[in-house]
Amino acid sequence: MSESDRVSYHMSKADFRKHGYELVDWIAEYLDRVETLPVLSQVEPGEIRARLPRDPPAHGEPFQNCIKDVDEIILPGITHWQSPNFFAYFPANSSGPAILGELLSAGLGIQGMLWATSPAATELETHVLDWLVQMLDLPKHFHSDTEGGVVIQDTASGSTLCALLAAREVATGFLTRQSGLSSKLVAYASNQAHSSLDKAMIIAGLGTDNLRHVPVDADFKMIPEQLERMIQEDLKAGFKPVFVQATVGTTSSNAIDPVGEIGGIAKRHGLWLHVDAAMSGTAAICPEFRHIHDGLEFADSYTFNPHKWMFTNFDCNCFFIRDRKVLIGTLSVLPEYLRNAATESGAVIDYRDWHIPLGRRFRALKLWFVIRHYGIEGLRHHIRRHIALAQEFASWVKEHPKFELAAPTPLNLVCFRHVGGDAINQHILDAVNRSGKMYITHTRLANKLTLRMAIGQTYTEQTHVRNAWDLICRVAETSSDASISEGAERSMPAR
Amino acid sequence: MSESDRVSYHMSKADFRKHGYELVDWIAEYLDRVETLPVLSQVEPGEIRARLPRDPPAHGEPFQNCIKDVDEIILPGITHWQSPNFFAYFPANSSGPAILGELLSAGLGIQGMLWATSPAATELETHVLDWLVQMLDLPKHFHSDTEGGVVIQDTASGSTLCALLAAREVATGFLTRQSGLSSKLVAYASNQAHSSLDKAMIIAGLGTDNLRHVPVDADFKMIPEQLERMIQEDLKAGFKPVFVQATVGTTSSNAIDPVGEIGGIAKRHGLWLHVDAAMSGTAAICPEFRHIHDGLEFADSYTFNPHKWMFTNFDCNCFFIRDRKVLIGTLSVLPEYLRNAATESGAVIDYRDWHIPLGRRFRALKLWFVIRHYGIEGLRHHIRRHIALAQEFASWVKEHPKFELAAPTPLNLVCFRHVGGDAINQHILDAVNRSGKMYITHTRLANKLTLRMAIGQTYTEQTHVRNAWDLICRVAETSSDASISEGAERSMPAR
Repeated sequence: MSESDRVSYHMSKADFRKHGYELVDWIAEYLDRVETLPVLSQVEPGEIRARLPRDPPAHGEPFQNCIKDVDEIILPGITHWQSPNFFAYFPANSSGPAILGELLSAGLGIQGMLWATSPAATELETHVLDWLVQMLDLPKHFHSDTEGGVVIQDTASGSTLCALLAAREVATGFLTRQSGLSSKLVAYASNQAHSSLDKAMIIAGLGTDNLRHVPVDADFKMIPEQLERMIQEDLKAGFKPVFVQATVGTTSSNAIDPVGEIGGIAKRHGLWLHVDAAMSGTAAICPEFRHIHDGLEFADSYTFNPHKWMFTNFDCNCFFIRDRKVLIGTLSVLPEYLRNAATESGAVIDYRDWHIPLGRRFRALKLWFVIRHYGIEGLRHHIRRHIALAQEFASWVKEHPKFELAAPTPLNLVCFRHVGGDAINQHILDAVNRSGKMYITHTRLANKLTLRMAIGQTYTEQTHVRNAWDLICRVAETSSDASISEGAERSMPAR
Repeated sequence: MSESDRVSYHMSKADFRKHGYELVDWIAEYLDRVETLPVLSQVEPGEIRARLPRDPPAHGEPFQNCIKDVDEIILPGITHWQSPNFFAYFPANSSGPAILGELLSAGLGIQGMLWATSPAATELETHVLDWLVQMLDLPKHFHSDTEGGVVIQDTASGSTLCALLAAREVATGFLTRQSGLSSKLVAYASNQAHSSLDKAMIIAGLGTDNLRHVPVDADFKMIPEQLERMIQEDLKAGFKPVFVQATVGTTSSNAIDPVGEIGGIAKRHGLWLHVDAAMSGTAAICPEFRHIHDGLEFADSYTFNPHKWMFTNFDCNCFFIRDRKVLIGTLSVLPEYLRNAATESGAVIDYRDWHIPLGRRFRALKLWFVIRHYGIEGLRHHIRRHIALAQEFASWVKEHPKFELAAPTPLNLVCFRHVGGDAINQHILDAVNRSGKMYITHTRLANKLTLRMAIGQTYTEQTHVRNAWDLICRVAETSSDASISEGAERSMPAR
């Protein structure tokens, strides 16, 4: 060993152990006390940065300094997604086995772009994703022993983009990837579909003008007849319809589009059917909720997020495809430096061709740990419990003279509002979030400000839901009419 | 608490601690013994899956079973990227503080799509990335107190795609994102540029036919006069040149394009200049290697990966942009359910608009931990050491009568080959990798099979490099001419 080799700034094995234990303890304590912390961070813009040193350190510091700064500087700026009082957006759940899976993935530090760069990462991923096909009773055509398959992606945004790209290539005989886009391709989704589809239209070069927002019924579900009408009009006008997205559980209101009817129309016109069940897909682990996937046999692709409601920490999205050749044909580029015997043999999957990034970490580990720790029955128990709590919350809303439900509650998202108009709802939203005791977010339904109560955080129990409702009622009752008149200052303008 | 709430399948605090300690120990032991394991996994396709149970577990299992299966089933299928004998591709480095940062990120489990959803995640990211601008002495126009900025992305593939999309929108007055692509836009890069640009051309709808592969000189660097000529030809033919990528350290041979000359041409013709320094950018932490970035003042965007050579585990790519308004204008879509007071105020950064995915985890933590643990001097020491070892290896190649350098060695990648032709090089490649004692990969340069020795793994020391060279020489010496004749079976066909 040379003199220079003897100098090392790497963390020693003993220090890694010591600080690893400390951090494991820190996380255990954090999750134990997280419900006592203000859910929504109460800091002002710039407050965190102002406490960080201007210059990077010239010389290394003890790791204890980092942990101390996490406590003193970082934690006040955290919005606690793992608090059982987090009812905002959709959850981004974590759990003990998922955190440990992420730790092991970081420790192994492999990069699984090719089968050869860690065969176990690819094969465990294929295996666990086939388990999901079975656990959710998804159409057989997504299983890896068919022409289809599944891959872990970062987010549903990535999956939806891949679906749109595949549809674009199928519709243009795989010429767009070579020659560039040259015709007006049109896509369809309900006007309640997630904004990630608008973003995918931008990225793929199709343009947001060519995404048709199909009208919805009173329950915020796509009206299939309107889809048919819009396709007919586009065909007459010389556009080329190529893609339709059905949503199983919209972000705004959890509306479930009629996938079967949409699928029938897609099939007749040769459109790619993509089904987005980012949040709600997990419910299908319970047989009694599998009806949400009625019609999924028509789907060319399907996406849902274990990182939302299946206790597997972000990021872990699953993208299912009917014909994997189409996806690979859309995205594959093979430079010399990635060629290898296993790939050439055709006997292996190289997941790098299944999504936008080239590199990929070993995310199947945490999903494997979660499924094995909970078992199917354990997962079902908690999903059922969340849905039951949401139904209970919805019943409280219904019984209250001043509140109303703003949409059906098929699963675990309750959309509701005070009957007094936008101003009082904005006031309730701001007041309960400012209290730090809970965090909810909003949407607009039927052009009215609507409060969203998403019940799905790993550690949420009845008492948290009860306390949230009590606080909402209390704030509503004590709001003086003066402070919440339509003319009063509002922290968020309506569009 | 209701009866149903009393039932819980979550991992208890005590169990989390216990298994957390076990995993920390497991990782410490793993990193201690990783150099004794076969670097390239020796399993056959399907071998790992065959050992996994067909069905998912109905009921939860003890966590010990998972750790046991990691040892017995998973580990034989791991290609050890953290082995000091890993010289393949480019490294995907990890380190103690990075692993602990990833653990803490998983434990906090926040989702930082908006400033409001965890202000500390956004502000720490901005702060640490400004540190990088300072540490690498990058142009001031990337610093967050200018019109520019930096964001952590998953991979350079994502960054390059974002750069191309921004260039596309600038060139079309932001009409493509709305109306779809309607003109023939052309991009340029050397014929040595990374395949992620081909993939980005596909995704963005421009098409691979519209990526011009500019010829290179004998050192595999882009020839600026050829770029100028191709642009002129395209203009005459009615195409619209919009984008040029310069590479600082190509994947094949680590060639460094003349960024300044390319930038001058880009400026004259109004092209977007993107600079890809995915692997090599880290070298600029040492003042004596900052010349690799000569000309970077022309760049509209720049990307490099702390997850390759800066001891920060995958994924952690940094994307630098001169005008953040352009990036946001390209990618932003704002649905009602993401609106909030902080965003409306304009006083905060919402990083969701800076990349393809919507959701994002707290990746700044690990980068912060790495910089604080090593300090600038510690990072410099290890980078300098890697480069010195590569220069030493290159000198051994030069001195050996049967080997030759296939390209210059500006930093830490040595491209070399046996003078006996492709067959013996293929034999050497296969034999050393099959030995399990080291792992290198290949490329083709000047249409000859070329071996790539990338020296940059966190734990690589002189002894590992010495042993690798000894093994390569031994294999070359003992190869009988018969077994390696040009006609012999090869595990990988040339294109």
